[in-house]
Amino acid sequence: MSNPSSLPLAGIVVLDFGQVFQGPYATLLMAKAGADVIKIEPPHGEPLRRRAPPGKSTTFPIAMLNSNKRAITLNLKQERGRALLFAMARRADVLLENFSPGTMDRLGVGWAELSRVNPRLVYASGSGFGLSGPDRDNLAMDLTIQAVSGLISTTGFAGDPPVKAGPAVVDFLAGIHLYAAVTTALFERERTGRGRLVEVAMQESAYATLTSHLEAYWQSGRVPPRTGNRSHARSPLGVYPTSDGYVAINVAVEEHWRHLLTAMDREDLRDDPRFKTNADRVAHIDETDALVGAWTQTLGKMEVFAITQRHRIPCAPVRDVSEVMHDPHMHQRGMLEWIEHDEIGRIVVPTSPLRFHDAARVATTPSPKLGQHNADIYSGWLGLTPEEIAELTESGVI
Amino acid sequence: MSNPSSLPLAGIVVLDFGQVFQGPYATLLMAKAGADVIKIEPPHGEPLRRRAPPGKSTTFPIAMLNSNKRAITLNLKQERGRALLFAMARRADVLLENFSPGTMDRLGVGWAELSRVNPRLVYASGSGFGLSGPDRDNLAMDLTIQAVSGLISTTGFAGDPPVKAGPAVVDFLAGIHLYAAVTTALFERERTGRGRLVEVAMQESAYATLTSHLEAYWQSGRVPPRTGNRSHARSPLGVYPTSDGYVAINVAVEEHWRHLLTAMDREDLRDDPRFKTNADRVAHIDETDALVGAWTQTLGKMEVFAITQRHRIPCAPVRDVSEVMHDPHMHQRGMLEWIEHDEIGRIVVPTSPLRFHDAARVATTPSPKLGQHNADIYSGWLGLTPEEIAELTESGVI
Repeated sequence: MSNPSSLPLAGIVVLDFGQVFQGPYATLLMAKAGADVIKIEPPHGEPLRRRAPPGKSTTFPIAMLNSNKRAITLNLKQERGRALLFAMARRADVLLENFSPGTMDRLGVGWAELSRVNPRLVYASGSGFGLSGPDRDNLAMDLTIQAVSGLISTTGFAGDPPVKAGPAVVDFLAGIHLYAAVTTALFERERTGRGRLVEVAMQESAYATLTSHLEAYWQSGRVPPRTGNRSHARSPLGVYPTSDGYVAINVAVEEHWRHLLTAMDREDLRDDPRFKTNADRVAHIDETDALVGAWTQTLGKMEVFAITQRHRIPCAPVRDVSEVMHDPHMHQRGMLEWIEHDEIGRIVVPTSPLRFHDAARVATTPSPKLGQHNADIYSGWLGLTPEEIAELTESGVI
Repeated sequence: MSNPSSLPLAGIVVLDFGQVFQGPYATLLMAKAGADVIKIEPPHGEPLRRRAPPGKSTTFPIAMLNSNKRAITLNLKQERGRALLFAMARRADVLLENFSPGTMDRLGVGWAELSRVNPRLVYASGSGFGLSGPDRDNLAMDLTIQAVSGLISTTGFAGDPPVKAGPAVVDFLAGIHLYAAVTTALFERERTGRGRLVEVAMQESAYATLTSHLEAYWQSGRVPPRTGNRSHARSPLGVYPTSDGYVAINVAVEEHWRHLLTAMDREDLRDDPRFKTNADRVAHIDETDALVGAWTQTLGKMEVFAITQRHRIPCAPVRDVSEVMHDPHMHQRGMLEWIEHDEIGRIVVPTSPLRFHDAARVATTPSPKLGQHNADIYSGWLGLTPEEIAELTESGVI
């Protein structure tokens, strides 16, 4: 029995071909849970490094999503590069990649080949549409998957064009699903001794988020119109203007509405037929929203928040990215940290939303530079000599 | 060594207090991975059952998110209800809940008490802000967490108010993080013999999705304005009108732009200084978008998609929920299925985005009715007599 204060994924070695958001997010969380993550990039670096300042290989997204990993370079288009991958795959527990489907197979280093040399390997593939089916080879980016998965058509105001969710929600939904598939397969491997090929499609990882819209369609047989910040089913629910920004208010049960009338000092409206029940308020949604908005407008967003909090009404200020990055709560909980990155300076990085109580705290190691750990891994782990490493570098193999 | 075609979570028993979206999504994926999930609800049912037709306990969201579970009722406010929970917790592997922080502790059935009777139990808590920190007790719904986490402020057009992502992206981001925390702890338990308290905060599960916006803020020192469907950094990238809807086009590298000029039959513009490089196009973003939009407008959305696909340009039709629900690709891959639910009829339900190759296929069992498996669990598993069960029902304990 190991130390209960150890880390859940201690001892697990991950070969991480993740790039951009989906793969690197999955392996960031593995590193924060104690795994030994080796980020493997082509000699020119993964796409997120492209906009690094001259002579450097770090961008802000690289720093956010690659703490606590080691980085090596490897050219899979060369025979000797593939041989190095086989050598590592024999010793590793997990290989994760989010290339287009078939990329690793075409290079001769797919699941079929690697599982033959290491049947315990868990091989994880992240892609837009998955490894099978008619749409498998369609190109996928967060934006295009937001389009096909229905996120865009359901976001925005009825009178305006549809609009994407600002953040890259699908890339990260897919990334955490990929993490989940890997840990499930690792659990199973402890019992069976065998690894598995696991896969996650971005499109599929977004489907369930549409539950309420799918319900509205199923109930009416018609595609529901966009409702902006409103709901088809509840009122008041929305984003209301204040003197210095916006607040979101979500009256989920009747008790919240009674509390809101008290908070607004409008208990005179308690028996008003326009507002008596949720159905009444939905039928008079413009008047309901006007009533709430007239009140919120007279106050600052943090004032509205403080009053609604006192009255136990679900409400939150609409915060900008500066407020989010400096959130005292997340900093106090250790979800966000200030670090000094020697290539890009003092920045805020996340740790992990997965919190394992009583586990050791993982001190943040800033994201590695391109190929920073080539000697460490190729010599220290695989046993190559410095001369061999120099020659491989010269030949463009690593 | 068990059968490799078995399921990864076979043999794992989950006590599922999940409600609405976050918890039930996590345990749906556990059930689809082979776990034995027991959905435990108060005698009046979880909130998602509230809008069920008279005499029934199934709504569309209940059916979507609770396949392959068994359902029992249990009143934790009664002493004998808590005793039943202890009896089950002794035999279970996982307990998952997404109540407000402290709810289970106040009832005397929190992690501290349950882990004493079963040190192997993995206890998973999902909440808005986590189990610690100054904001712990703030009320949380998908909408309010979209507000505090920055999703709302970064979604929508610059001239319009901020707008939420239509779908409940934060509830589901948090749900799959919760699944991930559980499987990580189950893996660890195979090695250490001990369970853990694991937790996920909705707010924290959304943070990384903002990566590009946090970068833009960090680079400029100013909160970037909303960009609608555009990007700060790339052009053309956006949602363009067609004769019958919209398409999303994402020119990610220069090769895509060259291909797009070919696709639009506008190779005459190859050397136009307004469009030559990405930086040129961002500087002339209105002209670039007008050029692309003028072309897409002349075609149907599936025509634009077919042409861009031929030219390997990332593009997708903006699809409505009807198109998503009937997507041939997801149906063919087995991600979506038609089932007959005896309370609400023929509907489409998801299986799981977590795909374990060579694992047995889990036949979908429609979501259980409220308390459907009371006899099954309380008699078959805990050994109570039919008379005891009748008495517990009568007394409102179950």
